[in-house]
Amino acid sequence: MRFDLTILGCHSASPGKDRFPSAQVLNIQKNIYLIDCGEATQIRMLENGIKRSKISKIFISHLHGDHVFGLAGFITSISLFEQRPAGIDIFSPPGLEEMIRTQLRLSESFLSFELRFHVVDTDIHQLIFEDNCVEVFSIPLKHRISTTGFLFKEKKKPRKMLADCIEQYEIPYQKIKDIKNGADFLTKDNKLIPNAELTLPPIPPRSFAYCSDTVFKPDIIPIIQNVDLLYHESTFLHEDKELADKTMHSTAREAAEMATLANVKCLIIGHFSVRYKSSNLFLEEAQKHFPNTVLGESGRIYKATNYN
Amino acid sequence: MRFDLTILGCHSASPGKDRFPSAQVLNIQKNIYLIDCGEATQIRMLENGIKRSKISKIFISHLHGDHVFGLAGFITSISLFEQRPAGIDIFSPPGLEEMIRTQLRLSESFLSFELRFHVVDTDIHQLIFEDNCVEVFSIPLKHRISTTGFLFKEKKKPRKMLADCIEQYEIPYQKIKDIKNGADFLTKDNKLIPNAELTLPPIPPRSFAYCSDTVFKPDIIPIIQNVDLLYHESTFLHEDKELADKTMHSTAREAAEMATLANVKCLIIGHFSVRYKSSNLFLEEAQKHFPNTVLGESGRIYKATNYN
Repeated sequence: MRFDLTILGCHSASPGKDRFPSAQVLNIQKNIYLIDCGEATQIRMLENGIKRSKISKIFISHLHGDHVFGLAGFITSISLFEQRPAGIDIFSPPGLEEMIRTQLRLSESFLSFELRFHVVDTDIHQLIFEDNCVEVFSIPLKHRISTTGFLFKEKKKPRKMLADCIEQYEIPYQKIKDIKNGADFLTKDNKLIPNAELTLPPIPPRSFAYCSDTVFKPDIIPIIQNVDLLYHESTFLHEDKELADKTMHSTAREAAEMATLANVKCLIIGHFSVRYKSSNLFLEEAQKHFPNTVLGESGRIYKATNYN
Repeated sequence: MRFDLTILGCHSASPGKDRFPSAQVLNIQKNIYLIDCGEATQIRMLENGIKRSKISKIFISHLHGDHVFGLAGFITSISLFEQRPAGIDIFSPPGLEEMIRTQLRLSESFLSFELRFHVVDTDIHQLIFEDNCVEVFSIPLKHRISTTGFLFKEKKKPRKMLADCIEQYEIPYQKIKDIKNGADFLTKDNKLIPNAELTLPPIPPRSFAYCSDTVFKPDIIPIIQNVDLLYHESTFLHEDKELADKTMHSTAREAAEMATLANVKCLIIGHFSVRYKSSNLFLEEAQKHFPNTVLGESGRIYKATNYN
């Protein structure tokens, strides 16, 4: 069952050749969630074979243009070419509804589906969305504008039924759901078969935390503790810590320190400033403090460790 | 002296792989003018070596997203990385100022320069801008939303002074401007040298008309008569004329008929619907009616005939 992240863009501010603004899609089982939507996200999706038609839940961290200026185009393209009877839900800090509805009204884009905006309180950690496979929580971040991170926690899956046992113990179809949820089974001749003999444990629930844009903020450590994948911005190198503080961003070293403190399995860094010659400088700095760091790159797929 | 058009995108509606929304830059002498600004125009500029820093006059035909959703990103990128003491002027139908200022306000993008919006009356043909080398006129178009075309008419240049004559007739520096503007010259020994002996005629002024999006609208023929380059939308093939009428677009044949009626030197077609397999279908249809038709293609440069 899939649990992987595709980065469509993770560079800061102005886009450039192979430098695309923030956008990611998270695949969990058969669902896809869009996280941030910088300019031309819809083009990046096409280039990376991401099916726009599968996206109906969009999570926007904050309203800076490099995280949101692709949203109106994405929505109008859906409206032009797709049927979406269930509508689309967008979760974001306040103000996004006014921005998007103004663009839609003035461009006379009449949507063929319902667009629902859900305002996220950026000061608190709370459940903001859940479906059959995931719970999404807000992560209070601190930036120059109201900003929220997102924690995606996969729901616990049922145990896996061993097919051979169904035949061996003549288990009726109606009992299987209970057994998958942990029940033992009583055979026709009153023999109790313990659940551990009938099932295998499920894959442990997996998790992803998205933290962009923000200052170094260790008070969120309890929220992101032990996640499989942490995306944390690292706009600057630590030699430019003063600039990071001034613009309310983090350094690569700080991202790595967050990963260490939270004991995450894998750190993905991104949101690199244009001022540096190579993204590898970020990687080198972060890996000194957290070895299992990988570079955020457009078009690259990042899998949770326990992925099958 | 340059007079050429670079198309950055000329496909209709939703962008796709190698299908970019409308944006063009017109180079006249040393100036560059941006015409329409679909999503990711700033990325296309980088890919095509267009200097963003040289653009300070922007012309938007109408507010449909595929012509304008790249503008907020373009403006904020300029503000982040450039000094623009003279500000930027944007010419468009009503509503654009509200759209862009709402995006800038909610994304807390504080511009480092003045942004001036000039509302174009889409019902009349009038001069809307001029500088040292060009006059720009509105062209009343007809689409589902208020839409204007733009006619760029190069100003008449002075005649070219023949360098040899300056020495031969001992022409003082102060007289050269008058001679370039057509004056004869009286030598020290009172011999009148006719202007035709002292100068060469300048390149005839060149012109470009941008007509997108619109229904077939022959009442604008007197405005676009004899232009060097005409960009006319051809969203549909003529077999889908009914659909063109319904959506208030033109067919390739209609674009060619406009070019014939207006006696233009070269017709560039674009704004192709995604429904057709190949853009060459448009070219074939248009060339039957106006042989000197060329296909609008992203990244292609179109020069006026009398270009040197």
